[in-house]
Amino acid sequence: MRRIMLTVAYDGSAYHGWQIEPTGITVEECLNRALSGLLKEEIRVSGASRTDAGVHARGNLCVFDTEAPIPPEKIAPALLGRLPDDIVVRSSCEVPADFHPRHCDSVKTYEYTIYRDRLPDPLVRRTSCFCYRPLNVEAMQEAGACLIGEHDFQSFCAAGAQVRTTVRYIKSLTVREEGKFLIIRVEGTGFLYNMVRIIAGTLMQAGLGQISPSYVKTILEKRDRSLAGPTAPPQGLCLAGITLYPEGFPPGFYAERR
Amino acid sequence: MRRIMLTVAYDGSAYHGWQIEPTGITVEECLNRALSGLLKEEIRVSGASRTDAGVHARGNLCVFDTEAPIPPEKIAPALLGRLPDDIVVRSSCEVPADFHPRHCDSVKTYEYTIYRDRLPDPLVRRTSCFCYRPLNVEAMQEAGACLIGEHDFQSFCAAGAQVRTTVRYIKSLTVREEGKFLIIRVEGTGFLYNMVRIIAGTLMQAGLGQISPSYVKTILEKRDRSLAGPTAPPQGLCLAGITLYPEGFPPGFYAERR
Repeated sequence: MRRIMLTVAYDGSAYHGWQIEPTGITVEECLNRALSGLLKEEIRVSGASRTDAGVHARGNLCVFDTEAPIPPEKIAPALLGRLPDDIVVRSSCEVPADFHPRHCDSVKTYEYTIYRDRLPDPLVRRTSCFCYRPLNVEAMQEAGACLIGEHDFQSFCAAGAQVRTTVRYIKSLTVREEGKFLIIRVEGTGFLYNMVRIIAGTLMQAGLGQISPSYVKTILEKRDRSLAGPTAPPQGLCLAGITLYPEGFPPGFYAERR
Repeated sequence: MRRIMLTVAYDGSAYHGWQIEPTGITVEECLNRALSGLLKEEIRVSGASRTDAGVHARGNLCVFDTEAPIPPEKIAPALLGRLPDDIVVRSSCEVPADFHPRHCDSVKTYEYTIYRDRLPDPLVRRTSCFCYRPLNVEAMQEAGACLIGEHDFQSFCAAGAQVRTTVRYIKSLTVREEGKFLIIRVEGTGFLYNMVRIIAGTLMQAGLGQISPSYVKTILEKRDRSLAGPTAPPQGLCLAGITLYPEGFPPGFYAERR
C-alpha cells in the first residue's frame, strides 16, 4: 500500500465545493471516480483544503492510498483524459504512508481577484468579483497591513463555525494592481471558515471609504463578526498554493510578524 | 424610428456563435430577446461580425431600429439585468438611420491567446488554446510579419467559403508574451471565414519548427488552403474591438503596409 499526493487545479464554478455532499457534484467526488477508474480499485482522496462552492484552486493538495503498481508520477498525466476539463491534476508523487498535508505545518496562499470597471467583463466573470465603484488601493493596503501577524480572527470567521481557537497567523497580505484587476494575496498558516472572503469584503469596504483602514484593528479587537465587512463572493477566490513544511517551520518563521 | 448601435462583449463558450441558427442558442438571439423585452417591441439586431461558435468578443458591434423613447445611452445599463451574465452590452448610442458598421470602413482587432505550460490550467481553458510544446516566439513573429499588408489570403480561408475576393489587408500583426500566455494580435480591414484561426494555427506551426517562418510567403503565393496550418480552436479567439471610420479611412491609411 502506498500513499500518493496530488496537486490539483480546478475551476470551481460548476462544483459544490471540494468535499462530498449530497446536494451537488464536488471536486473530491470527480477525483475519486477518475482515480478509481484508472487504478481499478476504490479510491478515496483526502484533501488539504475544503474549498467552498464556486471557489477555485491552482494548487490544492490531496492524498490517497493505493495498491496499484503504477509509477506515482504517471498518475497525473494519466488522469487528464479521465477528468472533466475544469479539473486538472498538475502533479502526483509518493509520500510517506502516514503523511497528510492537513496534519503538517504549511502555508496556504489565497488570491482574491477584483475586476474594476464601469461594466462587467463576461470573460472574467467566473474568476473575479466585479466592482464598478472606485477603490482606494492605498487604503486597502493599509487596512490589510493591520491583519498581518498572529491575531484572534473571530470577527473574520463565518458565524456558527465550530473551531477550537480563532487565533490564526497571517504571514503576508498584499494588495496589488494588474491593469483592471486588483489582487489581494494572503499567506497564512491556517484560515477560518470564510476568512479570506470576509477579509476581502472588509478591505473592499476600506477601499470604498466606508470604514477607515485603521478600523480593521478595532474589528479584530472586538471579536464580533458583525463589525467586519460582507463575505465577498466565491468566484473571486482562488487557493493559489500550499507550501508544506514536513519538518516543521524553520527557525524564525514567525519572526516575520509585524 | 431611431437606429441604435451597441458595443457587445460576450463569453462565447455557451453559444453557437453570433448569428441565429436552428441548432443552438446564439448571441444575436439573446440580444433580440432582451431588447424586445426592454423596449416592448420586436427588435432584431444586425451585427458587424458574425463570430463563430465558441469565439469571444470584447467589442463586437450591432445596430437595431426602435421607436421606443428611451435615451440611447440608457439602453446598455438597462440590459444588464435582462441578459445572461456571459453577455454584456458595454455601451449604446444613436447612429444615423442608414448607418451600418458592416457597410462602413473599419478595422477589426482580433486576439488569439495561447496558454503555454506543461499541463492545462482549468481557469483559463475557456479563453485560451493550450499548448504544452515549446513555441519559438521569434519564429512566430517572423512568420506573422509575412502576412502584414495586402495579400490574397485564399490559403487562409476555410475551404468552401463563398466570397467575391480573397484579397484582404492586414494592418498589423504582433505576437507578444504575457507570462505563460502568448497573444497573437491582428488588425485588419476585413477577414475571411476562419482566417484568424488559420493564421494562429500556421504561426503555431512556425513556432513549433514544423515550417520555416518564410514559408508563410509561399503559402500566400500558392493560394491553397491545404498548405496553411490547421484552424486553431475557437476558445482562443476574441474579437477585441472594431474601429469605425464613417468618413472613410484617412489619407495614408494603407501606407503602413510593409
